[in-house]
Amino acid sequence: MPRIHNYYAGPAALPLAALEAARDELLDFQDSGVSVMETSHRSKEYDQVHNDTIALIKELMGLSDRYSVLFLQGGASLQFALAPMNLLAPDQSADYIVTGAWSKKAIKEAKIIANARVAATTEQDGVFRSIPTQDQLDLDPNAAYCHLTSNNTIFGTQFRSFPDTGNVPLVADMSSDILSRAFDPTPFGIIYAGAQKNLGPSGVAIVIIRDDILDKCRTGLPTMLSYKTHADKNSLFNTPPTFAIYMVNKVLHWLKDRGGIQAVEKENTAKADLIYATIDNSQGFYKNNIAPQDRSQMNVVFRLPSENLEAAFVKDALAAGFVGVRGHRSVGGIRASIYNANTLDSVTDLVNFMKDFHKNNA
Amino acid sequence: MPRIHNYYAGPAALPLAALEAARDELLDFQDSGVSVMETSHRSKEYDQVHNDTIALIKELMGLSDRYSVLFLQGGASLQFALAPMNLLAPDQSADYIVTGAWSKKAIKEAKIIANARVAATTEQDGVFRSIPTQDQLDLDPNAAYCHLTSNNTIFGTQFRSFPDTGNVPLVADMSSDILSRAFDPTPFGIIYAGAQKNLGPSGVAIVIIRDDILDKCRTGLPTMLSYKTHADKNSLFNTPPTFAIYMVNKVLHWLKDRGGIQAVEKENTAKADLIYATIDNSQGFYKNNIAPQDRSQMNVVFRLPSENLEAAFVKDALAAGFVGVRGHRSVGGIRASIYNANTLDSVTDLVNFMKDFHKNNA
Repeated sequence: MPRIHNYYAGPAALPLAALEAARDELLDFQDSGVSVMETSHRSKEYDQVHNDTIALIKELMGLSDRYSVLFLQGGASLQFALAPMNLLAPDQSADYIVTGAWSKKAIKEAKIIANARVAATTEQDGVFRSIPTQDQLDLDPNAAYCHLTSNNTIFGTQFRSFPDTGNVPLVADMSSDILSRAFDPTPFGIIYAGAQKNLGPSGVAIVIIRDDILDKCRTGLPTMLSYKTHADKNSLFNTPPTFAIYMVNKVLHWLKDRGGIQAVEKENTAKADLIYATIDNSQGFYKNNIAPQDRSQMNVVFRLPSENLEAAFVKDALAAGFVGVRGHRSVGGIRASIYNANTLDSVTDLVNFMKDFHKNNA
Repeated sequence: MPRIHNYYAGPAALPLAALEAARDELLDFQDSGVSVMETSHRSKEYDQVHNDTIALIKELMGLSDRYSVLFLQGGASLQFALAPMNLLAPDQSADYIVTGAWSKKAIKEAKIIANARVAATTEQDGVFRSIPTQDQLDLDPNAAYCHLTSNNTIFGTQFRSFPDTGNVPLVADMSSDILSRAFDPTPFGIIYAGAQKNLGPSGVAIVIIRDDILDKCRTGLPTMLSYKTHADKNSLFNTPPTFAIYMVNKVLHWLKDRGGIQAVEKENTAKADLIYATIDNSQGFYKNNIAPQDRSQMNVVFRLPSENLEAAFVKDALAAGFVGVRGHRSVGGIRASIYNANTLDSVTDLVNFMKDFHKNNA
């Protein structure tokens, strides 16, 4: 089958160039006579991939030498526990800004380990339609950190700018918008992200940790659950998920070749604007109930006049070559996930489909 | 470069058929128009792979319905901590049979979490050359479990049969010999294995857990560290490492097509016998100091008369098309890792190389 339009929320579309490069050398990695999957994580061939990937992340995100980049496993979900395990002593507390399902999971894990308080929540009747403003935050100046989820895949909201937490370091789950836009990393103590949206396949999580936070990490943890272990060994304490990291490397080279973060952000904005404009100009046929300043540029969610029409939309979209547009099972509706690898051409085709569907079902 | 002889200890050689199948559908998985890396873990296409992989493991290993098969991340190293976290209450103790570097790491993690005692160790002057016999075991009848490492990649020893621990369930790290031979799973409460030797690429660990052990697992753990979480959700609580599991699926189909465990075990024995015979018939040029009944069929370690000759052996082997024969950095010497995917033809070539090297350097 020819390649189709991929709108899955994650695992999600990868750049075609990255997939083709992987395919072409799958049996013979860099003239080594073995697959990258078959080479030792201690080989010089893999070592080059590993360190090049770290360097690319630092370069593309503009990270200073104060940050270490780690490759861990278990997705962002494991980081929900590792961040408090490493950063929170039993007598300490962390603040959580709750803006969706993933933030709720994050604070739940923190409460298993130590003290965590809600610095703000935008939940109303079980749904989230906005991001709290600075003056809606009830911040604890003594918090060990303040956690946020930068983009909410299920509810379609996004921190378009980040809150000021003073001397309290931010800890951010950026799984669904990392490397999609420029921002100042300075206030962040930890940034973590599962790879399977903007970075690569599932199976590796990136953890970016600042030196002062690393120094304060707790000791006495099980070895594999300690950030220090992985920082001290450059993520080679045990066998890393080498193929997943290799794919991240391919994706990052593609990103750099496209012009880096600035170029990608510009296209991401254009893509999101196209869909939101189509929604807003549909005379209420398509509805997005998110506060306009908090709309996600990664996951555009919308509803149709009825669930029957939504089911027809999903079915017709698939027939027209768009896979993965069904909303998250917990909220229903439609969701177009438009990560870095989704092209402007594909999004243009999608909005044309939306207009046709509207016309045919008005 | 043409494919060469791969003797890495892990990540290690994969079956050529599995790699070719992955390459051929890397951009279009099962006529879906997207890569298997790009499809949702909730898609029907991925779901089929996931459940087929579980079914194949159960079929090939002859596991009863009492066992659940989980796909976790973090390698065997994370299981060193998860097994005691899940199975050991603070007032309980577990037995550990210490036969090498990996067993030592396993008991170290258990001691961080609760009580663990050495039921036997074969360490002498920092090295391990044997597996304890049944009468060398000092077993605690009240232990929550008895842990062993079935094959020792660094020292080249292997449990050729398993100890009798009565009513105490065995918990085994089988990372380096899982699916290489037939055995009765009944006494095992947990079997775990990182994939990157006999199962697939790095980035997924298989955890096989018996229902009575699962029922006794502790509650109150961080969600991602609980075996119950993953068993209850069929390893889909969060996004699993889908591509790694897909590769395991390809490897298992190859294994089944070859005739299953019995056929593979027969060839593994033939491969190991060839190398050990070459060592034993070399008039002391090649030396393997392992007790003969405890020799590993997966990792054949040997020494040459000098470190200079060992360095020459590694160099000449690479020139002759054999990669990965250097011994583990902690012990030196030579190591030929001959997992399921290493062919008898390749091992025949290796022993011919060994004989030539001996002749040229006698």
